[in-house]
Amino acid sequence: MRQTRGVRKIHVIGIGAGDPDQLTLQAVRALRSTDVFFILEKGEVKADLTGLRRDMLDAHVPEGTYRVVEARDPERDRSAGGSAYSPAVGDWRSARADIYERLISEELGEEQTGAFLVWGDPSLYDSTLGILEEVLERGAVAFEYDVVPGISSVSALVARHRTGLNRVARPVQITTGRRLAEGFPEGVDDVVVMLDAHQTFRQYAQEDVDIYWGAYIGTPDEILVSGPIAEAAPRIERLRAEARERKGWIMDTYLLRRHPRD
Amino acid sequence: MRQTRGVRKIHVIGIGAGDPDQLTLQAVRALRSTDVFFILEKGEVKADLTGLRRDMLDAHVPEGTYRVVEARDPERDRSAGGSAYSPAVGDWRSARADIYERLISEELGEEQTGAFLVWGDPSLYDSTLGILEEVLERGAVAFEYDVVPGISSVSALVARHRTGLNRVARPVQITTGRRLAEGFPEGVDDVVVMLDAHQTFRQYAQEDVDIYWGAYIGTPDEILVSGPIAEAAPRIERLRAEARERKGWIMDTYLLRRHPRD
Repeated sequence: MRQTRGVRKIHVIGIGAGDPDQLTLQAVRALRSTDVFFILEKGEVKADLTGLRRDMLDAHVPEGTYRVVEARDPERDRSAGGSAYSPAVGDWRSARADIYERLISEELGEEQTGAFLVWGDPSLYDSTLGILEEVLERGAVAFEYDVVPGISSVSALVARHRTGLNRVARPVQITTGRRLAEGFPEGVDDVVVMLDAHQTFRQYAQEDVDIYWGAYIGTPDEILVSGPIAEAAPRIERLRAEARERKGWIMDTYLLRRHPRD
Repeated sequence: MRQTRGVRKIHVIGIGAGDPDQLTLQAVRALRSTDVFFILEKGEVKADLTGLRRDMLDAHVPEGTYRVVEARDPERDRSAGGSAYSPAVGDWRSARADIYERLISEELGEEQTGAFLVWGDPSLYDSTLGILEEVLERGAVAFEYDVVPGISSVSALVARHRTGLNRVARPVQITTGRRLAEGFPEGVDDVVVMLDAHQTFRQYAQEDVDIYWGAYIGTPDEILVSGPIAEAAPRIERLRAEARERKGWIMDTYLLRRHPRD
């Protein structure tokens, strides 16, 4: 079956935003061709998300045909603010590359296939591809890899809100809470915000902007709120705080849609 | 099974960028719960793409459980340039809404479920959601609808190139060829371009920009080219012209990645 002998193979598999039915047929096929799954745990979200991934394997891969290797994700220094962000990320990537290198060289046989399961789509705000490239550049372990695209939380969010990402013939930007805090992006009126721990949308409550917000999208805990920011913001704040308190973690995303001034 | 009696139901199903394995399990489920599929033909691409959709139905839905209704998509006036673009789009949407309204009211029983199959993801540069809203606003026919997200050509493109859409903590913009012709978007260095009939990337051949280009992504005709624009552009031009000549139509997308100036 393997096309190349003696070369480890890695799948980077996008597994969707939380709804196990958002796996693609291609992802299911990749899961079934995997010998060893690498699961990196992230502190508080660990129990829920590791459980969801294990449920997916149980549902789609025959028992006894694979192994799961769990490793501890290095803590990212989130206290570093402003310009200190990049170096902290750099250290963290390097620490993660150490772990990936060890996992691949020690846990994966030379003719075996390993997989990293990525929430959403591996192309959006996920570090797996960059880390694998770093491991390859170091040259200590050789492997081939491919990428299986997944339904991103961005696609899942707007599908649940039954709206488009862009308006007709107009652009859309995907950015971070940190960037949004610096100002509404130039040249676009539709902006998707990810990785926002500070509800930066509140900064635009006085402007003519609609928000389409969602948390735990596609899971039984899903919460959706939409409307003009001024009206929606207090509701989102309350629901977000309650959910975070109840579950111990939150994963949310939102689209801001500014009414053009012209 | 139906939750509401006497109300027509519509699924808007994202079916991925061309690889039939990029259907999600949720999409397969939606296909199987559909009584009537509406397929709108678009001139030259008709044979290939209608065929691909029919293959998906054959593969996933038991024969005899559904009907396919094909309709002719109204021609969009692509000759209209500049500021004439929006009105032409408006007319075209309105003409399309007439057709959708007729399809839903005449071809779908009151307790039945219909579906529109959308290439890629219904949230990106697709008019189906907007047209359905327009039909609902007219009030002549009532229905409920939901949206099944799909793998967009954007996700499929970068997965095949094994690269991310954004760089660490940076934004990405998705825009059109027409917008790119007006200038490289402000505030971003990673730009995905869709709907570009004029290979607008050539405009940036003198700048320090990499391109990740793909056509017919995920199909047996797939073509991928990447590299600095200056080097890649002539190759893309040649391959694009050959493929277009051979197949009679082309569907391509690309990511431009500008090297930050700082």
